[in-house]
Amino acid sequence: MRAFVTGAAGFIGSNLVDRLLKGGHAVVGYDNLATGRREFIAKALRHPNFKFIEGDVLDVTRLNESVCGTEIVFHLAANADVRFGIEHPRKDLEQNTIATFNVLEAIRINGIKTIAFSSTGSVYGETAVIPTPEDAPFPIQTSLYSASKLAGEGLIAAYTEGFGIRSYIFRFVSILGERYTHGHVFDFVQKLAKDPSTLHILGNGLQRKSYLHVADCVDAMLTAVACADAKINIFNLGTDEYCEVKDSASWIAGRLGLDPRFTYTGGDRGWIGDNPFIFLDTNRIRALGWRPKLGIRESVECTVDWLRANEWVFS
Amino acid sequence: MRAFVTGAAGFIGSNLVDRLLKGGHAVVGYDNLATGRREFIAKALRHPNFKFIEGDVLDVTRLNESVCGTEIVFHLAANADVRFGIEHPRKDLEQNTIATFNVLEAIRINGIKTIAFSSTGSVYGETAVIPTPEDAPFPIQTSLYSASKLAGEGLIAAYTEGFGIRSYIFRFVSILGERYTHGHVFDFVQKLAKDPSTLHILGNGLQRKSYLHVADCVDAMLTAVACADAKINIFNLGTDEYCEVKDSASWIAGRLGLDPRFTYTGGDRGWIGDNPFIFLDTNRIRALGWRPKLGIRESVECTVDWLRANEWVFS
Repeated sequence: MRAFVTGAAGFIGSNLVDRLLKGGHAVVGYDNLATGRREFIAKALRHPNFKFIEGDVLDVTRLNESVCGTEIVFHLAANADVRFGIEHPRKDLEQNTIATFNVLEAIRINGIKTIAFSSTGSVYGETAVIPTPEDAPFPIQTSLYSASKLAGEGLIAAYTEGFGIRSYIFRFVSILGERYTHGHVFDFVQKLAKDPSTLHILGNGLQRKSYLHVADCVDAMLTAVACADAKINIFNLGTDEYCEVKDSASWIAGRLGLDPRFTYTGGDRGWIGDNPFIFLDTNRIRALGWRPKLGIRESVECTVDWLRANEWVFS
Repeated sequence: MRAFVTGAAGFIGSNLVDRLLKGGHAVVGYDNLATGRREFIAKALRHPNFKFIEGDVLDVTRLNESVCGTEIVFHLAANADVRFGIEHPRKDLEQNTIATFNVLEAIRINGIKTIAFSSTGSVYGETAVIPTPEDAPFPIQTSLYSASKLAGEGLIAAYTEGFGIRSYIFRFVSILGERYTHGHVFDFVQKLAKDPSTLHILGNGLQRKSYLHVADCVDAMLTAVACADAKINIFNLGTDEYCEVKDSASWIAGRLGLDPRFTYTGGDRGWIGDNPFIFLDTNRIRALGWRPKLGIRESVECTVDWLRANEWVFS
C-alpha cells in the first residue's frame, strides 16, 4: 500500500515508517520537524520507497497536495505534551483537534478511503472501570490533551459515517522504546544525569501507569489495519500489566547503576490532569492474534539504554 | 447574578434571556445575528437590566471584552444545523468547537467561575442503551454536529479540571416552542403551506424522537445551576416519552386542519447521521425536583400555533 504518515519524524511515526518500508510499502512522510527529528528518518531517507515532505498539518494547501496519491493515512502528528496543556490551552486545540480536521479534509478531498489515528487511553479520564474496555462508560475529560484527542476521535467517527471512509482509532497507553523523546523515563534519566544522588518524583510515586513498547505498538496498529474491517475500528493498545511510578523509577535508576534517594512532591497526582491509574483492557486487539513481545520493565530498561546511547536527544 | 448569554437572540437563548430578566438578574446578551433574530429580543431590549452586544464568538477580542464583569456564562451560540454537516464540515468545527474554546478562554481570562453549555443528546450516537443515562457506554459519533458538541464538552471538562471553574453541561433532546426556527415542525409547516395535500417525510417515518418545550428546558437549566454543585454537572434534558416522526407529522397536520397524504423517502434514517431512536434517561435532573410541564404532543402543537402566528420567521 501507499501510506501517508503525519508526524513521520516523530517517535512513533518514524518507527512506523521503518516498519512499513521493511514490509515493502511505499511511504510518504510528513512532518514539520518541530518536535520530530531528522535523525529518526535518516535511514528511511535512503530508502527508494520513502519520500519525505517537510510540512505542517496546519498548512492545509501543502497537506492536501502531499496526501494526493496515497491510500491510507496514519495520522500521528500531535502535540503529545500531556502535562503542560493548561500553560498553553490553544496548542492542543490547534495541533490535535484542528490538525485532525485538516487531515480528514485532505482525505475527503483526495478520495482516500482509510485513516488510522493515534488517540490515547487518557480519553477515558478517571474512569471507574479498570481494566478499561473500549466501551467503558462515557468518560469526563481531565486534560486538554485528552479533550483534544477525544475531539479528534469524534471527528473521525463523523467523517467515517458521513463520507464512507474506514477508520482505525488506537487508544495508546504511554509508549516507550527507541527514539523516545519525552515522558517520565526521559525526565528521570535527565534528572539523574544532573544529580545522581536524588530523584524528585511528581506526586506520591504510587500512581499506577501502563506502558507499551513502540515495536509492539506499531505491530498492533498494522495487525488491526490488516485484520479488522468494521467501518470504525477502535482498539486499546497496551500490555496486560501496570506499574507504580516509584517502581519504574527504581528500574531506571538500577539500569543506570545508581541508587538515588527518592523524594516526592506528594499527592496522588503528579500534575493537574494527571491520572492516578491507567490500565486498559486489550482483549479486543488480542482477539486479532496480537500479543506484546515486551513487558513494562523490559520496555523501561531498553528505553534507558537507548537514551544513554543517544544522549544528543537531550539537547 | 450577572449572566452572559451567547446566542442571546436565538431560539433557546432569547427564551433564557427573558426568564433571567424576569428573575431579576442582569443579562448581557451576545449574538452575531446570523441566525438569531432581533425580534426575539425586542422585549428584552427595553429592559433596564439587559445589554445587547452584537458580536461573533469567533471574534476573540470582542468576546473577551464583552464577557468582562459577568459571573456566569450561558454558552448557547452554535451551529444548530444537524442535518447539513457534511455539506460544510468546517462550520461545526468553527462555530461549535472553536467557538466553545474561545468562550472558555474568555472565561479564564476574565476570572469567571461558571459556565453552562447547551450540548446535545446526539453525543450518545446510536447507543444501545435506551433510555440513555448520562454515563452510558462510550459512544461513537455519527454526525459532525454531535462530534463538535462532544469536543465542546471535552474542552469544558478539561477547563473545569485545569482552571477551577464549575460547569453545567446540558444534553438536550430537540427543543420546541416559541421562537422555534428550524427542525422538523418548521419544515413540515412550511411544506404544508406550499402543498397542503401531500407531506414528504425523510426516512420511513418510524424514527423515534424526543422533544422538550423551551420553557421546560430553560427551567431545567436554571434548576440545575441553582441546585447542583459538583465541579462538572452533566444533565440530560427531555421528557419521559418519545414519539414517531409520522405521529408528530399527524399532530402538525391536524393542528393546521389538514389531512395530507404522507409519502416517505424510506429507510430508517432521514439523512446520513440521523439517529433512528433518541430517548434520554432524565432521572438525574428529576432528582433535583424539576419536572417538564408540557408533553411532546402539546409542545408540537404549541410550536405549530406559534409558527402560524409568526409567519415572518419563514422569510
